[in-house]
Amino acid sequence: MTAAPTMATAVVAVGGNALTAADQDGTWAEIEANAAEMAGSLSALVRSGWQVAVVHGNGPQVGNLALQQDALAHSVPAQPLHQLCAMTQGQLGSVLVRAVDRECGPGTAACVVTHVGVDPQDPAFEHPTKPIGPFFSRERADELARERGWQVVEDSGRGYRRVVASPRPARIIEMGAVRTLLQAGHVVLAAGGGGVAVSVGPDGAMTGIDAVIDKDLAAAALATAVGASELYLLTGVDCVLLDFGTPDQRPAHRLTPEEAERHLAEGQFPPGSMGPKITAALRFLNDGGHRVIITSARMLAEAAAGRPGAGTCIEPAHVSVGSAS
Amino acid sequence: MTAAPTMATAVVAVGGNALTAADQDGTWAEIEANAAEMAGSLSALVRSGWQVAVVHGNGPQVGNLALQQDALAHSVPAQPLHQLCAMTQGQLGSVLVRAVDRECGPGTAACVVTHVGVDPQDPAFEHPTKPIGPFFSRERADELARERGWQVVEDSGRGYRRVVASPRPARIIEMGAVRTLLQAGHVVLAAGGGGVAVSVGPDGAMTGIDAVIDKDLAAAALATAVGASELYLLTGVDCVLLDFGTPDQRPAHRLTPEEAERHLAEGQFPPGSMGPKITAALRFLNDGGHRVIITSARMLAEAAAGRPGAGTCIEPAHVSVGSAS
Repeated sequence: MTAAPTMATAVVAVGGNALTAADQDGTWAEIEANAAEMAGSLSALVRSGWQVAVVHGNGPQVGNLALQQDALAHSVPAQPLHQLCAMTQGQLGSVLVRAVDRECGPGTAACVVTHVGVDPQDPAFEHPTKPIGPFFSRERADELARERGWQVVEDSGRGYRRVVASPRPARIIEMGAVRTLLQAGHVVLAAGGGGVAVSVGPDGAMTGIDAVIDKDLAAAALATAVGASELYLLTGVDCVLLDFGTPDQRPAHRLTPEEAERHLAEGQFPPGSMGPKITAALRFLNDGGHRVIITSARMLAEAAAGRPGAGTCIEPAHVSVGSAS
Repeated sequence: MTAAPTMATAVVAVGGNALTAADQDGTWAEIEANAAEMAGSLSALVRSGWQVAVVHGNGPQVGNLALQQDALAHSVPAQPLHQLCAMTQGQLGSVLVRAVDRECGPGTAACVVTHVGVDPQDPAFEHPTKPIGPFFSRERADELARERGWQVVEDSGRGYRRVVASPRPARIIEMGAVRTLLQAGHVVLAAGGGGVAVSVGPDGAMTGIDAVIDKDLAAAALATAVGASELYLLTGVDCVLLDFGTPDQRPAHRLTPEEAERHLAEGQFPPGSMGPKITAALRFLNDGGHRVIITSARMLAEAAAGRPGAGTCIEPAHVSVGSAS
């Protein structure tokens, strides 16, 4: 495949775990080193002529921040979750901007603190499922539920935790700014952590909502909003595996949306990991996107170039291999 | 004065105290209410046809964040100061974006996480003066000095505190992105807290530096970098006062740069408050800026419109009153 047309846009979603691995504590040195590695992969995409927007997750980092905020809550006001999400956008946006600029030159990357509108009537609010922040004793959890209106649940036998809703991203508030920066040639960090969740009132006023938007779904919404043709969902594995963990386990390097949807319906993809990625992919393709690649950071450049066997490519059957515009 | 030419740019610097007042704790409700009030003043400037960039301070907020980070340092890694600054850019950028958008429509404002290059040879690094974060006992302060390489000093009889340098802003890394967004009609939040301080190596790589850049000086540097014609430095008082606290105390509503420089040299302006504002004003005018207004948020619109007696206007003698382009 030759270089993609100069003006084609790709949105890349990277996990919060890519910046703080499961066996790491989340020190600055760890985050900086991980970001440098990630930027190596991203810059390959940039150099092949793509306009690139990057959506990072923030699970481990917002978890640490929530612990710290809670530790002093009696003397220093703890900020609401939507503000913690904004903080991690600054934190991780900064480290990724520096890492990308190291590869592509100072001033190339720009991080836009991004708000994402959600529907207050989203059914997700009826059944909050996303655990967030520290574990508490039953007593403290009850107290917090009363004081702050939190919903708390017993989590994995380790104590009680706050749970929040994970509503569907309905609207990228800063889509105009992101598009403008992409068109001006910037690598744009946006909708970090899935975006700061807000509801937008009839008068246009945004109200912060303590919810967690799935970053892959946010990336799909951003990709649609800015007219991206490709969406890259990076994960810990090189490609989608079918019949995972069975003797029939096999890689799926090419899928049509119909095949992906059928596998999803069959329960091939667990809700906490590959499931949301497939859902995000299908949503983007349904909304006019051309191609979705699910792969690891290390395989990104090869998968983008269409090397057979690199990553999983989901695209409609009638699109020719390697088509990018 | 009629509306300013559509394409003229103004940079407005607002203090961190404008978002968390001296008698407040820094709760979300306080910050949100203060931001709403500030946005009322900013939107008047926007509505009169200016392209507006806003630089906020972060003193109280980064202080709270440092306290929280330190509280759990034994179990959750404390992030370095340059990362805390990036976090407060996300935090306060988000609240200000929402407040401005409430006045001007969703998607109007955009916050760019901004890095500011400083010279590692800046003499400020030889004598760090800016206290930051919590007070410690002598023992703990010595320990932190050893462990983290901090410089600590006894502060105001209340204990020991870390001090960091306050170097001069030499380069706004994201100036291109900020200019692009201004030209596209966005109200841009940038260089919050004075910017994330970085040194830029010969290969273009940015290294975070634990320093605090004065937000008025950062605003002046940003204003020059984006070709702004006016710089607004908001403060707690409506205008500059001469012979402050003496029987001769009097407002100065109009000053030439020469007059301002003379008053500064005479020691009229204390180093911690009005001094840096006058220095920032002179630097901006020296670098080609047209006009600087020092006033309160509530007086902003009137001062911008050139109402006599509103704020302090510093401009060269040959520029006519109310000229904005």
